[in-house]
Amino acid sequence: MELNSLLNHPSEWLKGTGPHSDIVISSRIRLARNLAKFPFPHWASKKQGEEALAAIEEAVRKTDILKNTAIFHLADLDTVDKQLLVERHLMSIEHAQKTNHKAVIFDEAEVIAIMVNEEDHLRIQVIQSGFNLLEAWGIINKIDDGLSKELPIAFSSEWGYLTACPTNTGTGMRGSVMLHLPALVMIRQIDKVLAAIAKLNFTARGLYGEGTQASGNFFQISNQVSLGHNEDEVINSINSIIRQIIEQESQARSIMLARSKEMLEDRINRSLGILKSAHIISSQETIELLSMVRLGCDLGMIKDINISRVNELFIITQPAHLQKLENKKLSTQERDIKRAELVRQKLSL
Amino acid sequence: MELNSLLNHPSEWLKGTGPHSDIVISSRIRLARNLAKFPFPHWASKKQGEEALAAIEEAVRKTDILKNTAIFHLADLDTVDKQLLVERHLMSIEHAQKTNHKAVIFDEAEVIAIMVNEEDHLRIQVIQSGFNLLEAWGIINKIDDGLSKELPIAFSSEWGYLTACPTNTGTGMRGSVMLHLPALVMIRQIDKVLAAIAKLNFTARGLYGEGTQASGNFFQISNQVSLGHNEDEVINSINSIIRQIIEQESQARSIMLARSKEMLEDRINRSLGILKSAHIISSQETIELLSMVRLGCDLGMIKDINISRVNELFIITQPAHLQKLENKKLSTQERDIKRAELVRQKLSL
Repeated sequence: MELNSLLNHPSEWLKGTGPHSDIVISSRIRLARNLAKFPFPHWASKKQGEEALAAIEEAVRKTDILKNTAIFHLADLDTVDKQLLVERHLMSIEHAQKTNHKAVIFDEAEVIAIMVNEEDHLRIQVIQSGFNLLEAWGIINKIDDGLSKELPIAFSSEWGYLTACPTNTGTGMRGSVMLHLPALVMIRQIDKVLAAIAKLNFTARGLYGEGTQASGNFFQISNQVSLGHNEDEVINSINSIIRQIIEQESQARSIMLARSKEMLEDRINRSLGILKSAHIISSQETIELLSMVRLGCDLGMIKDINISRVNELFIITQPAHLQKLENKKLSTQERDIKRAELVRQKLSL
Repeated sequence: MELNSLLNHPSEWLKGTGPHSDIVISSRIRLARNLAKFPFPHWASKKQGEEALAAIEEAVRKTDILKNTAIFHLADLDTVDKQLLVERHLMSIEHAQKTNHKAVIFDEAEVIAIMVNEEDHLRIQVIQSGFNLLEAWGIINKIDDGLSKELPIAFSSEWGYLTACPTNTGTGMRGSVMLHLPALVMIRQIDKVLAAIAKLNFTARGLYGEGTQASGNFFQISNQVSLGHNEDEVINSINSIIRQIIEQESQARSIMLARSKEMLEDRINRSLGILKSAHIISSQETIELLSMVRLGCDLGMIKDINISRVNELFIITQPAHLQKLENKKLSTQERDIKRAELVRQKLSL
């Protein structure tokens, strides 16, 4: 697989299907795993890092469920390539910052993505469209089993899976659900919801995970700790809290429709109107307007635009995607013009 | 002619033709005339007011060039009717405020409009599309001649035509040209231009004349005094200053196109996009967005919308027009919804 082939189609998880896809973009499970007898990546020597990467590559090639994945060494990628992978949620911002013995492994549908030598030797993620943690769990479990057969994984009968950061020790699992909560934001109930989540030891982050701000009314809700609970317990507790938030967002949407339907219609249609006509547009404004268009699709106020197209636009209007599509470096201003052109074209199809 | 028939077609002067119609909306001449032997309207008794009105009505019916006009007594009109006439520039805001012995007389094309018992007994106006004061002068001259044959007009061989306010004494004439100057506003040169106009004893007013603010980048430039100059001199001096402003606006447009074409394309297309999609819109926002659309039509950036349609929208999106179209009183919020609907409909034709 060529890296550029990513540009030919949106990631599978953006298709806008799956349970509760009007509110839930995607469900993601990641496992942190480390090789026994190797120091954690941050403490490993160059040689140890290289050996760990080589061992993992070999294991991946032998693992049946990973046979359609491609392996990219970060040392072989330029800045825009790396940013492209971040924008597609195939690796973290941190992973892109240093390239030593690092790799990223993923399949063409972008359901599976594995970072090698990030904070842990292995960070395995599986993303599914909609509210579907169990499906993601089923897939990642098979990957975990497959790799465990080939690699000596660091595990303590007392602590569970050992990880570089103690907050991940135990199951090494994090479940995250990406939610679109425009109505809770509009009726100013979102802070209450986020405060309740924090008390229950869940975190809410922005589109790009840890350290990123919520924008476009997207919130990624994850479990904070995994130690002391098994995987089923963790998934059940996330599912339970997500179901409550879905219910709250649904209610907020009903309230908005009952109280201020015209205002909502105005805001949604203006957002689409601006996206269809702007000739210069920033990434931030694009995300915010697309957020309103997405809500319009979900509420049936916009009928002729497919939700998967809107989901795709959130991703492909980002800087690295625009530069890849143009096949050259673009200044901020050039990107703002190119972005507007791409949005107009995609929304007028 | 029924008052409601005004709603069937835009005023002739909005057709967007005539010289320099990319920058000049319309050219207007008005004459202030008073009946000899009658006190000026503000000092007249009820009986005198009634008599003046009756004399004028009779004269109008006998004057050939006015044979297709209709006479409306303000006492017979409701608030919305009167506001409608103001919005169409057929009478002043002041004229609408009191109804005693007042009338307004106009033809179906709305080229000619005569206010009876406003500040003076007669305020005659002729409006033409584009930069065309001479044409307007030719028509108004015939009206003046015709009425003078039927009515004893107050005239002093020393002072010229006598008027209620001394600033109008002399020719009693005011020439006004309505200009659309978005580029001078955008390159921040408009204040300089307006200051220069003021020094030359011209005034710049908003869309609705005296006391109204400039909005939508529209400026109505008029001569300040008429005493001591004959009509040709007044018209020549207005024409000369307007030619200079047209040249300055043209240059400003060229500068904008050379320096910031993308910004301009963005602003113009966004304005059209919002007008085509909004579901709630205020009068002020409508005027400002239409101003950009008008510029877009003039610059060839918008090709599928006729300038006369844009000109018409400036008028028919106003409160009285909306209420007349709906045939009922509308609250501000109801008007904002109806306005958005009308704009969407007219721009998607």
